[in-house]
Amino acid sequence: MKPRQAPTFSATIRIEYPNVVGMLGKITSAVGEAGGDIGSVYIVSINNNLITRDINLSAYDIDHIHQIIKELKKIPGINIKHVTDRTFAVHSGGKIEISLRYPAENSDDLAIVYTPGVARVAMDIYEHPKHVFNYTMKGNTIAIVTDGTAVLGLGDVGPAAALPIMEGKAMLFKQFAGVNAFPICLGTKKPDEIVKIVKEISPTFGGINLEDIAAPRCFEIEERLSEELDIPVFHDDQHGTAIVVLAALYNALRIVKKELGRIKIVVSGAGAAGIACTKLLIAAGADPERIILCDRGGSLYKGREGMNRYQSQLAAITNSEGIKGSVHDAILKADVFIGVSGPNVLTRKDVINMAKDPIVFALANPTPEIMPEEALPYAKIMATGRSDYPNQINNVLCFPGFFRGLLDSQARCVNDEMKLAAARAIADLIKPTELNEEYIIPSPFDSRIHQALAQAVQDVVRKRKQ
Amino acid sequence: MKPRQAPTFSATIRIEYPNVVGMLGKITSAVGEAGGDIGSVYIVSINNNLITRDINLSAYDIDHIHQIIKELKKIPGINIKHVTDRTFAVHSGGKIEISLRYPAENSDDLAIVYTPGVARVAMDIYEHPKHVFNYTMKGNTIAIVTDGTAVLGLGDVGPAAALPIMEGKAMLFKQFAGVNAFPICLGTKKPDEIVKIVKEISPTFGGINLEDIAAPRCFEIEERLSEELDIPVFHDDQHGTAIVVLAALYNALRIVKKELGRIKIVVSGAGAAGIACTKLLIAAGADPERIILCDRGGSLYKGREGMNRYQSQLAAITNSEGIKGSVHDAILKADVFIGVSGPNVLTRKDVINMAKDPIVFALANPTPEIMPEEALPYAKIMATGRSDYPNQINNVLCFPGFFRGLLDSQARCVNDEMKLAAARAIADLIKPTELNEEYIIPSPFDSRIHQALAQAVQDVVRKRKQ
Repeated sequence: MKPRQAPTFSATIRIEYPNVVGMLGKITSAVGEAGGDIGSVYIVSINNNLITRDINLSAYDIDHIHQIIKELKKIPGINIKHVTDRTFAVHSGGKIEISLRYPAENSDDLAIVYTPGVARVAMDIYEHPKHVFNYTMKGNTIAIVTDGTAVLGLGDVGPAAALPIMEGKAMLFKQFAGVNAFPICLGTKKPDEIVKIVKEISPTFGGINLEDIAAPRCFEIEERLSEELDIPVFHDDQHGTAIVVLAALYNALRIVKKELGRIKIVVSGAGAAGIACTKLLIAAGADPERIILCDRGGSLYKGREGMNRYQSQLAAITNSEGIKGSVHDAILKADVFIGVSGPNVLTRKDVINMAKDPIVFALANPTPEIMPEEALPYAKIMATGRSDYPNQINNVLCFPGFFRGLLDSQARCVNDEMKLAAARAIADLIKPTELNEEYIIPSPFDSRIHQALAQAVQDVVRKRKQ
Repeated sequence: MKPRQAPTFSATIRIEYPNVVGMLGKITSAVGEAGGDIGSVYIVSINNNLITRDINLSAYDIDHIHQIIKELKKIPGINIKHVTDRTFAVHSGGKIEISLRYPAENSDDLAIVYTPGVARVAMDIYEHPKHVFNYTMKGNTIAIVTDGTAVLGLGDVGPAAALPIMEGKAMLFKQFAGVNAFPICLGTKKPDEIVKIVKEISPTFGGINLEDIAAPRCFEIEERLSEELDIPVFHDDQHGTAIVVLAALYNALRIVKKELGRIKIVVSGAGAAGIACTKLLIAAGADPERIILCDRGGSLYKGREGMNRYQSQLAAITNSEGIKGSVHDAILKADVFIGVSGPNVLTRKDVINMAKDPIVFALANPTPEIMPEEALPYAKIMATGRSDYPNQINNVLCFPGFFRGLLDSQARCVNDEMKLAAARAIADLIKPTELNEEYIIPSPFDSRIHQALAQAVQDVVRKRKQ
């Protein structure tokens, strides 16, 4: 595949040069010939026949940026004054901040938002504990809790390196659903300690989003917190993924006219996402006997050694044929492949060996289990986790609206009914007339999605409360 | 003292009445005669000869608001549609929120602030741990940590009731010094657990502000966290108070032309604030032998029973005459009284018994150790914690700028040198020509103060680093 210039690798190059006709052309040509993609160009200053401009460009990677600079330096009279890496520039000082919902401009304001006025609110909450949801941030604020052990595809990079990811997530919570999300990056990896800490800091929060915690510890932590807390706990890497996968599968099955209860599904990856996807598929009506989970050691079957408790539980009810072997064996005659594992797990031959109209969700990031170029045209429907191919399956479709719904209904827990309703809400946003092989899942920038999801979750909570 | 209408007890009353001349006059007269203070008046709507207006007013207390409403109802033709308590209205939904420093408006932005771009930043921090201060919120974000055990004058109201106070504090951090402060309200009161939790959540934060934790647990918690963390830890109830008291005292002593090293000081209250004030006074050059701390049990002296470790340490070096008895005994010939205790501890006679030109800081809130009406004219200089008298001694003068300075210099701890520099910076904002008995301390709305304080703290850190 030809590499693309990516926004991730974009730079602002500040150049000073003699203000004569033709110079800018030489510069832009040099960038273009070196393979750079020029964006906006600004004048910074003009002094004594010297002009300074900022050139914004995208490249393939960091080396490519250096190569472009080298080419620019060859132009006589040019002076490269500064190079800014746009990704780092945007991260400088952090991506989120605390803001005031009301200003405190004078001592009268101070007397209301702080002492003595705030004492009236404190005493009201003391006397009516539920009022904390009305008169504080709690009702619209969640914690994004991580221990930094399973960050993106990077692995155990620790809590400090995880912080920019949590901030990015907090941005999406706010931007897409108005939810205040605050990163809590923990210095401990012990489940007991994580459970204890999250429990004790929970008074500030109306919900807990667990994030990037490695399996199988993530299962135990989520289970215990869900039991011990009276606010909802949601591990996004599990359920966010599962909900969006199910939504995409609902629509894919509509196209190929197959029924969820009758198909054979292979799930590659038996970590947080794989296990949650399998469970939700079963809750949605998939036949557990016709699901095969695979991990690096091959297919999961009853009695296989080296499985954790959560894998054993699923091995006991799935793969009723007891197929032992690799994913290449499991995939035979499968209708659906769901990859939440790693790069290049699947071959073109595997896709050919699937049942008619294969559905392939290759969600490993950045390199999928099989590249679309490889899988198509054998696959009928193909989805990845990437934004540069059709059908991007991304958690951001789910978590903002899901939590909006949890908070607005003051839900005390998360259950399968909510997850199924959420998946259905995402799927139903695409009208039958719009649905096609390259459009089975909406974009996160489709503003309807987060609201539709929130409403679906709220409806479940309200129905239960009645 | 005549009660005042307070912004704390203000309401918006929505009234509908026939749109005829003279009605508004009747309404405002009724409010005024009932003792209400009318603020702004707005038209909401005019329909079919009926007009609806919002009347904003302040009262003495809640009963007074009800009384005013009763009087309004007596006016023929009037219909009270709605009454909003302004303090609760302002608190509705919380006072702070999370905001994005940059928008993520399209998938290119998403690729920079979230995956895949953010992975580059995460790996950079993983390889260069100090970069977390550059590329995340950490460098400008602190936690306001409380267990809700000593909230304002309310006592142990718990973490939920403490939340609105912590939000108010977060507003002031942001408004006055641009610091992102996030409330962490803890469900535990155990020092071991608090230390452990704060330590483990510290990766997100560049500093820790401890708040409203009861003495003597607050001392142990602060000591242990200061030792174990590599970011600064500051217990505002202790050091914020001590710094502002010392600043006010510097200026008061200038007026009465006395030297800190030669005066007798009585400190009423041997909790967090009293102990910290005493320690900072000594660090500033006050003669410990001429300081007497008092609590409910009377003066602290060497060997007195029932003292905690921190009180014993101070009892061993202060009160060299070994005066035993109440504050009324201790106050004889004292130059300065510093009250951080409770209402009505001091009598007019006590002030008369002080040395020439008595300085009385009666800081208990809302009712001081002695009311200014009572203490003056015997006291030469009088300060309280209240905004409705001259010389308000309030922590808000200190904590925003102090943390601004700590964060900007990436300080790793808090020391006495910083506190002394901060006190001096606050005091020096008032020029000799401006200084007088009713102006020994600037207002928190004096925009210079937070910047001056930040600079003073930074100067200390930078000097040490050289």
